[in-house]
Amino acid sequence: MKTIKNKIYTLPKGTYSERATKKFLTYLNGNFEIKYCNSIYDVFENVDNSGFGVVPIENSIEGSVSLTQDLLLQFREVNIVGELAMDIHHNLIGYDKNKIETIVSHPQALAQCREYIKKHGWSVKAVESTSEAVKLVAESSNEKLGAIGSKDSAKQFGLKILEENIEDYKNNKTRFILIGKSALSFKTCPNRYKVSIVFELKEDKPGALYHILKEFAERKINLTRIESRPSKKRLGTYIFYIDFEDPGKNLKETLESLKEQTTFIYVLGRYPVLL
Amino acid sequence: MKTIKNKIYTLPKGTYSERATKKFLTYLNGNFEIKYCNSIYDVFENVDNSGFGVVPIENSIEGSVSLTQDLLLQFREVNIVGELAMDIHHNLIGYDKNKIETIVSHPQALAQCREYIKKHGWSVKAVESTSEAVKLVAESSNEKLGAIGSKDSAKQFGLKILEENIEDYKNNKTRFILIGKSALSFKTCPNRYKVSIVFELKEDKPGALYHILKEFAERKINLTRIESRPSKKRLGTYIFYIDFEDPGKNLKETLESLKEQTTFIYVLGRYPVLL
Repeated sequence: MKTIKNKIYTLPKGTYSERATKKFLTYLNGNFEIKYCNSIYDVFENVDNSGFGVVPIENSIEGSVSLTQDLLLQFREVNIVGELAMDIHHNLIGYDKNKIETIVSHPQALAQCREYIKKHGWSVKAVESTSEAVKLVAESSNEKLGAIGSKDSAKQFGLKILEENIEDYKNNKTRFILIGKSALSFKTCPNRYKVSIVFELKEDKPGALYHILKEFAERKINLTRIESRPSKKRLGTYIFYIDFEDPGKNLKETLESLKEQTTFIYVLGRYPVLL
Repeated sequence: MKTIKNKIYTLPKGTYSERATKKFLTYLNGNFEIKYCNSIYDVFENVDNSGFGVVPIENSIEGSVSLTQDLLLQFREVNIVGELAMDIHHNLIGYDKNKIETIVSHPQALAQCREYIKKHGWSVKAVESTSEAVKLVAESSNEKLGAIGSKDSAKQFGLKILEENIEDYKNNKTRFILIGKSALSFKTCPNRYKVSIVFELKEDKPGALYHILKEFAERKINLTRIESRPSKKRLGTYIFYIDFEDPGKNLKETLESLKEQTTFIYVLGRYPVLL
């Protein structure tokens, strides 16, 4: 008897998204086969046909939150079905720390290690990805160059890890979401759920958002994220992305209360937060 | 007598950021020389030494809003000194529209033309930039490929513009900010000002943000953007980026009212909105 394997799409090998995918799989029942895509967009395109996907949803060196949010709104049938956070650590990679003069990395990684780089008085050069940075340093054979990247990439290109965990802030977490068009079966019953919604405000006037938040505050529902973006469809209107702790039986009533104040409101997912 | 030229840093030639820079210059008194950088990070690094810079601050094919926001918080002496919005138009570029099977572009551009691509039944391939997409199609000499990119890039690589303005939503604007450490002189007195602030909430509890927004709603101050992000320094705390219409003489009082509820609050800029 042949086992049916579900496909789970994510970013290339060695990325944090791949690691997040493997972590998601430890929580899921069923057989999965990881498929690698070149971009967040490709992941959504594939999941829109079938299977599941894992992409970053928050400030990350692998993609912008705004793209993932745009795609969640565009691929209306693709929902968030799970979430987890990963610690992001950066490493100094190269030949000899004392000989380094210039650091090469992705702009987001350079930004996340800025104080460390400044302390050493190094100059910086931005490239497209952390893995490209490590490759560049390896191919140059130039001891004056150092890269910021993952341990895996140091191994891949045969360079030394000169220092671990060089990020300025130690609570550097990135959230990843599991997306799909159908439900999934979890091995253990998750004990925390969140809801993500997107809506457009009817009127752009002072206090409009304040009235929306009142509906949450009065029900003592904790918001975990809020973001506004100008609507692409009409000038002067805004769409809002709000994540909040699942209020259980109050969910329907809360969403109903927002309908009057919005031109549209979609639930992007009601999903477990995995540890 | 030698004229002193101020430096103004931005992204490479042919980008929307370069066009935004040229538009900013039409509003400014003084002599400026445009300097091109490879990344948003490089622009901030240069401006931190001297001069001015222009970077995207909103959902854009040239960079993520979250990186620019991180950098505004990290480079505390670099402030927003001006803002303007640019229309973003996409073009179908290649050899023959009827022979196209696959569209190549930056993920954000593919996302912004998704309905158009779907209507034609084309498959998609994501690459690092719109200009790289046009280059790839030109170098392949493959009529089955089409790129989405700017008119300038079609000219640069000797390809035809097969269709203009193929973006799904016609109000596709991206905001750009002018950044610097000192004030600038504008040719005409701008008539609209905005203020950008960033703060961290003292407590993560339901209604905390609601109480902050109350201070704005009661003063009838219109918010133009709001975004929350988990604080990198402490777990379970959030930082908020809020843009609002300049309340004039009420500004000081409004900011004072927020101090009690926040662990820090910085003004990222009080700046004119140019048309």
